[in-house]
Amino acid sequence: MEVLVTGGAGYIGSHVCVELLNSGCEVIVVDNFANSKPEALKRVQEITGKYLKFYEADILDKLALEKIFSENNIEAVIHFAGFKAVGESIKIPILYYNNNITGTLVLCEVMKMYNVKKLVFSSSATVYGMPKRVPISEHFPLSATNPYGRTKLMIEEILQDIYASDKQWSVAILRYFNPIGAHESGRIGEDPRGIPNNLMPFITQVAMGKREKLSIFGSNYATHDGTGVRDYIHVVDIAKGHLKALEKIMKTRGIETYNLGTGVGYSVLDLVKNFEKATNKKIPYVISEPRLGDIAECYANPIKAKTILNWSAEKNIQDMCIDAWRFQVNNPEGY
Amino acid sequence: MEVLVTGGAGYIGSHVCVELLNSGCEVIVVDNFANSKPEALKRVQEITGKYLKFYEADILDKLALEKIFSENNIEAVIHFAGFKAVGESIKIPILYYNNNITGTLVLCEVMKMYNVKKLVFSSSATVYGMPKRVPISEHFPLSATNPYGRTKLMIEEILQDIYASDKQWSVAILRYFNPIGAHESGRIGEDPRGIPNNLMPFITQVAMGKREKLSIFGSNYATHDGTGVRDYIHVVDIAKGHLKALEKIMKTRGIETYNLGTGVGYSVLDLVKNFEKATNKKIPYVISEPRLGDIAECYANPIKAKTILNWSAEKNIQDMCIDAWRFQVNNPEGY
Repeated sequence: MEVLVTGGAGYIGSHVCVELLNSGCEVIVVDNFANSKPEALKRVQEITGKYLKFYEADILDKLALEKIFSENNIEAVIHFAGFKAVGESIKIPILYYNNNITGTLVLCEVMKMYNVKKLVFSSSATVYGMPKRVPISEHFPLSATNPYGRTKLMIEEILQDIYASDKQWSVAILRYFNPIGAHESGRIGEDPRGIPNNLMPFITQVAMGKREKLSIFGSNYATHDGTGVRDYIHVVDIAKGHLKALEKIMKTRGIETYNLGTGVGYSVLDLVKNFEKATNKKIPYVISEPRLGDIAECYANPIKAKTILNWSAEKNIQDMCIDAWRFQVNNPEGY
Repeated sequence: MEVLVTGGAGYIGSHVCVELLNSGCEVIVVDNFANSKPEALKRVQEITGKYLKFYEADILDKLALEKIFSENNIEAVIHFAGFKAVGESIKIPILYYNNNITGTLVLCEVMKMYNVKKLVFSSSATVYGMPKRVPISEHFPLSATNPYGRTKLMIEEILQDIYASDKQWSVAILRYFNPIGAHESGRIGEDPRGIPNNLMPFITQVAMGKREKLSIFGSNYATHDGTGVRDYIHVVDIAKGHLKALEKIMKTRGIETYNLGTGVGYSVLDLVKNFEKATNKKIPYVISEPRLGDIAECYANPIKAKTILNWSAEKNIQDMCIDAWRFQVNNPEGY
């Protein structure tokens, strides 16, 4: 089966490419390398020993997308391409909306032209906004607290409308909780530009001595140690969830949403301690002011993915720390 | 002052062009005539005796928009261009999202490039979804019941994010209730293609004998006569509201939302009776099943526009009927 992966050179995309190739799929990647590097795709091929076809193109470029569909026999699309930094989205919302929403619309238009109506979409637990309770189930009310989150929410709504208009579509919307870690080969992983927005790359950079200390935002949350609790999940588990979702949409029609989380919450301090234990490195930290819009606890109820996709996370917090660290050590300057 | 009007050949757009020209503005129209005709712009010039510059172009065409901005000294934009049929939006949502949302994003991007940050946006009372009570104030909760409504709601949210990212913008979001009627000259008015989606053009076509009878959807609503109540407002009043909003945004920065309605609700039967009285024509009708998603009553609290813009509707239901009828009689086949 030929699968198109948009944004396939990115953090999650590259791990999904590995799993797809390992499962015997033919993989076609389209990426504009706006926030990723071709090196990631080389390494995907090196890890799997398999060939991957890639196009350097922007999904906003309709003609380029049409060319990709006309040159291949694409049967399904896994759609990652999009900007993802909350802070940046607040500063340059037009670019975020244009890239994420228009990009998805162009993709769907071309998919429709080529009668490819199987789609796995990369959403986020951010669409739960400020959830009133945990664990979070898929039916919880949705909202967004920043433009990035709004792009994800709007795309989910658009996909619902597309399915409602044409019941031949089959769409899986995957809401990721907090993917961390890296492929166990240590060859692909999270490669942030500049100061990391996410916790784990920050921790690994502190452990490397690249940054002096970690800032922990808030220590008075109503959690067991006062720091925020999140549902960290190994990126390889996330990647495997995509394969299960893909299997499902190939067999059925409809639109379904799945949480991809472990169902277990760890606090920032839990993660730091687990990292220290796994790596034998000390992570100096300071407590800073809590960030506006941050919630105390956020973790998934992952039962729907377990029941319907037969998927659940297998790797534990120690695996996540060890694998993240291995990638950092092997790639001190990223790709 | 030079004002760009997107979708200026449309029903509301053309009436706004008349008011802008009469007030001494220079008007530049961009329209792709997807759902309008160049004739409307000829007549705008004929009514006002003034010149209007127009470009036949699609606002999705960024280069074309850039050309318009580079060739003129545009100081503000009134943005009407967009698809507007609820039923069609359910059938072809990708096109609706692409046209309305991407169109607005391209427009805002080009406005930003040319440092034009004054915008009046054409929204709709549809963003109130199924309001819990009437009259409806601007702070009521928002939701959408179909893709067309979602495009309006999403654009409102995008504009809020744009303003939040750059406080130099000044944006007025105008939520129209039910514009009907026509310019009193009888030269411009609503010119639907095929079977009218809206009530008044349907009534005038029945009165002309072009359609046999009117279908009234539902007669058991909790209203004084059982038929649905709406806030019909004369399109020339709506147009004047745009001038007041434009004045306001030229003097201030910020983003504000205003209802444009009369504050008075009329039922379908009230409108039919008023039309019959105004025109001395009999409108045969049948009662049909209520439409899914229709609400009993929808009318505005128009106090905010009155207080802040010093605008309120001046024309009554008889004016609306007489003017709509005059346009229909003078233009039996539309433009």
